[in-house]
Amino acid sequence: MRNKAIVLASGGVDSAVTLGIAALDYELLLMHFNYGQRTERRELKAFNDLAGYYGISRRLVVNIPELGGIGGSSLTDNSQSIPEGVYRDKKVPSTYVPFRNGLMLSFAAAWAEVQFVKHIFIGVVETDVPGYPDCSADFIRSMETAINKGRKPESRLTIHTPVIKLNKVDVVKLGVKLGVPFELTWSCYQREDAACGKCTSCLGRLEAFENAGIEDPIEYMDD
Amino acid sequence: MRNKAIVLASGGVDSAVTLGIAALDYELLLMHFNYGQRTERRELKAFNDLAGYYGISRRLVVNIPELGGIGGSSLTDNSQSIPEGVYRDKKVPSTYVPFRNGLMLSFAAAWAEVQFVKHIFIGVVETDVPGYPDCSADFIRSMETAINKGRKPESRLTIHTPVIKLNKVDVVKLGVKLGVPFELTWSCYQREDAACGKCTSCLGRLEAFENAGIEDPIEYMDD
Repeated sequence: MRNKAIVLASGGVDSAVTLGIAALDYELLLMHFNYGQRTERRELKAFNDLAGYYGISRRLVVNIPELGGIGGSSLTDNSQSIPEGVYRDKKVPSTYVPFRNGLMLSFAAAWAEVQFVKHIFIGVVETDVPGYPDCSADFIRSMETAINKGRKPESRLTIHTPVIKLNKVDVVKLGVKLGVPFELTWSCYQREDAACGKCTSCLGRLEAFENAGIEDPIEYMDD
Repeated sequence: MRNKAIVLASGGVDSAVTLGIAALDYELLLMHFNYGQRTERRELKAFNDLAGYYGISRRLVVNIPELGGIGGSSLTDNSQSIPEGVYRDKKVPSTYVPFRNGLMLSFAAAWAEVQFVKHIFIGVVETDVPGYPDCSADFIRSMETAINKGRKPESRLTIHTPVIKLNKVDVVKLGVKLGVPFELTWSCYQREDAACGKCTSCLGRLEAFENAGIEDPIEYMDD
């Protein structure tokens, strides 16, 4: 029998490839968060489409509008605009959502304990978003330590980050190799009908597909 | 000007005394979680009554029914009964809610970052609930480390646990000394009208007041 694992899936490229990797060896449970991000409904559709593709019935969608409600991020605060252009700065970008990954990992740890799951997968990419403090390997290890101290001793778990050291081009190439259905994913930060092709997330995605020599199968506004 | 601090307040004795301590030195923000516990409404009233007493207007109530929804605790799962009698076992009791404190601290860390707050207070008592893994000093320090690695570098914060090493009798005595309004608090795990006086939480509270030589000002069913 396969071991069970929870995969945190936003529905974007990184989490879809992480899901594709986890699906090779584990029986999966899939988890998603709505936190008041602008493209919440579209992301949720991508999550459910991916879950359907991989035949995963155990899904947990957590609604925490309060995370968006406290502000501090252009992803959730409509009075801020989403940055356009490729992000090359070293500063924390405005799209950073305060301690989002810590919160999601904490919730996954709670669900894992109840479901007797010892493995959590999260698609963080350290090199891709240098400014996001909650995407570093150092943070993930610290969080794993804290989780293992703060739950029942027999629940010890491991957090897997299979794409953390890859650049986005290699994430895309790996996804193609694994047959990840990129047509079901969603990355745009600001639109839900067709991807804008202008925000930092769209541009990072388009650049990665182009450098990988692969056509991005989703629809863009300019098409 | 006083430094700001966020206090996590369930509305029980430990968090009320922690609030009383924090109020001596800090300008306060107050945070509460509804997670599908049986006495959710009564706890929320205690939280708001305490906030009113201390004149705290910045309050954040987070609703995460999904934490109760995943099960695993007699506090949130109505098919399990709340244990009665004083809890003296070393095992994790059925009232343990999976990784609740980790989740609450993660959310407080997010709010703290947005509000430029560097101090969080949580009323965990290590000796009082030996079986709760997320109440240990070791866990709290690990969580503080993880939080500080996973947020903006300039947001570094400290988690304060002023009652963690006290026994409940000393928590009550300290509260009286500080003028904590115990009449506004709520501890019962199973009733919302008058405290049952039988569940582990009521009995632990009653025993602490009795050993402190102080009358518990809240109403019990047997009164």
